[in-house]
Amino acid sequence: MKYSLNSKKVAEAAHEWLANRGVRLEDIADITHTLQQDYYESLTFEECLASVEQVMSKREVQNAILTGIQLDLLAEEGKLLSPLQEMIEHDEGLYGCDEILALSIVNVYGSIGLTNFGYIDKLKPGIVNMLNDKSGPRKHTFLDDIVGAIAASASSRIAHRKQEEIENKGLVPPAP
Amino acid sequence: MKYSLNSKKVAEAAHEWLANRGVRLEDIADITHTLQQDYYESLTFEECLASVEQVMSKREVQNAILTGIQLDLLAEEGKLLSPLQEMIEHDEGLYGCDEILALSIVNVYGSIGLTNFGYIDKLKPGIVNMLNDKSGPRKHTFLDDIVGAIAASASSRIAHRKQEEIENKGLVPPAP
Amino acid sequence: MKYSLNSKKVAEAAHEWLANRGVRLEDIADITHTLQQDYYESLTFEECLASVEQVMSKREVQNAILTGIQLDLLAEEGKLLSPLQEMIEHDEGLYGCDEILALSIVNVYGSIGLTNFGYIDKLKPGIVNMLNDKSGPRKHTFLDDIVGAIAASASSRIAHRKQEEIENKGLVPPAP
Amino acid sequence: MKYSLNSKKVAEAAHEWLANRGVRLEDIADITHTLQQDYYESLTFEECLASVEQVMSKREVQNAILTGIQLDLLAEEGKLLSPLQEMIEHDEGLYGCDEILALSIVNVYGSIGLTNFGYIDKLKPGIVNMLNDKSGPRKHTFLDDIVGAIAASASSRIAHRKQEEIENKGLVPPAP
Repeated sequence: MKYSLNSKKVAEAAHEWLANRGVRLEDIADITHTLQQDYYESLTFEECLASVEQVMSKREVQNAILTGIQLDLLAEEGKLLSPLQEMIEHDEGLYGCDEILALSIVNVYGSIGLTNFGYIDKLKPGIVNMLNDKSGPRKHTFLDDIVGAIAASASSRIAHRKQEEIENKGLVPPAP
Repeated sequence: MKYSLNSKKVAEAAHEWLANRGVRLEDIADITHTLQQDYYESLTFEECLASVEQVMSKREVQNAILTGIQLDLLAEEGKLLSPLQEMIEHDEGLYGCDEILALSIVNVYGSIGLTNFGYIDKLKPGIVNMLNDKSGPRKHTFLDDIVGAIAASASSRIAHRKQEEIENKGLVPPAP
Repeated sequence: MKYSLNSKKVAEAAHEWLANRGVRLEDIADITHTLQQDYYESLTFEECLASVEQVMSKREVQNAILTGIQLDLLAEEGKLLSPLQEMIEHDEGLYGCDEILALSIVNVYGSIGLTNFGYIDKLKPGIVNMLNDKSGPRKHTFLDDIVGAIAASASSRIAHRKQEEIENKGLVPPAP
Repeated sequence: MKYSLNSKKVAEAAHEWLANRGVRLEDIADITHTLQQDYYESLTFEECLASVEQVMSKREVQNAILTGIQLDLLAEEGKLLSPLQEMIEHDEGLYGCDEILALSIVNVYGSIGLTNFGYIDKLKPGIVNMLNDKSGPRKHTFLDDIVGAIAASASSRIAHRKQEEIENKGLVPPAP
């Protein structure tokens, strides 16, 4: 049978795999809300969730999600070859391919997402902290970075849209 | 007077500055058309031009255009400090900030633009070749890379949209 | 006179321009030391300073320093064209070319620097906070990101070297 | 048993996996030589090989090699989950994680490697063309990009070193 890309199937898989790994879009939107509410008083959780959903609709984001979760799953099952198995299984600090994949998500929404991504990665708010818990059988070496990158991208997207709103209404933007 | 970002003014300036430096969006669309017509038989010049215009509407692209052209102008007028003046004036091969700015454009449309960008930069088709001409008084150290990046991004955007069209129509995609 | 790149002059200029803008390598090393001392008990300030000096010896880093400081200086003197002048002068949040240049520094030392860069950019420790002070006549829109990127790169370099030391001595690494 | 990173084992694995996939460092050096001999008349194949070996000694490069080849192997064996399996197996044009990993190699040697990487990826010289052959059972979706990135990085490294030689000897550099 001839191969043919099925974009709808890819998008659905990205959502399903994320859910199967215990991550709800609401958890990601929570991080975005926490990060951005100091800058935009009127920002609602619903706006953050809508922004996360928009980020999830991008093909690059879906590709990174599928690739990262696949590697996490294989590491969990011990099916990667040594020494890659050990590096991913133990979230080796000098192994940076997880940050690389996450960066490809952040880049789609411009460089202002970079800072938020680094900040989330260090502070590990909410779901990122749970994913980063190394005590259980689950390995989320890639997923914690990917979730942080989606939250950072959604934040970046909100910053762009809030500016639009301000300009359309003729309002003055908040102090930077 | 309080500062307030005026996005419309930034967008207009990006278009004007490009025009003032002798680059028409049609010139950029020509490169995109040349690059992509082998993959999509039915691709028209108008589609390529529309894609270039969409790329131009992105804030990151406008920021890179303004910053790059500003540095080119200052180098032309000899107003940068030495040794930065000499490196930009002579398009020094080991000075890579021009490629860096261009990469920030390409990244917005995903990694598949990377290859086209590198290819354009080496082959220097059409307007890129004219910008790269070192014999006249004009210095386009940043602009040739930026134009290549816009053409590459427009190509990447077309690849994504053609896939959509194919899937919507239930057609089979072209061989990669 | 024929142009010829003088690498020694470029390296010296990077050091001088940084000093002229009030940034000592010791200030950058302080940030690195603060960031890394929790991970490596025996880490000395001198090691951090040596790491910053090594980062400063890279051509990509020097290029980014010269380009960023040049733009800051021109913004300070009001010599950039509108609306770029206003965006850089006011460190516009949606203008990301400063983060882009900084990222080109971080990339040289691998993706593990990314997180530290974002963290520094948010927390603004020590000299980064001083550079970010918007009340005076000085504009450091690019420089605060560049300094953060150098500190993050020096941290990344230390993480790589500490691992080497551990392996050479047959010691066990610290928990991640 | 406590986990501890063994850098020597990682480096050896990167070399072995590459060899097992039919790529000799000489094949990569050939691409570098072809790309750079027009710029540097005296450039020898041995210099190119030494440059490839230096690139191979970087941890980021080794991580990308192991991760990419692992995904290629799993795709070959049909062991990835659908739809990731189909995308990697068929080197889907709109799947860009392979270019992302390759970019992380190129970045270590600065932005001037970007252009060469894109050029190699389009022209597919020598071993890259063989890896890209889709007719056999082997899948090299990641490896062809990784090999191109190593060759581009080695080229970038040579450009930096040749400049050093010229300056040390007081010679004039070649026209850009």
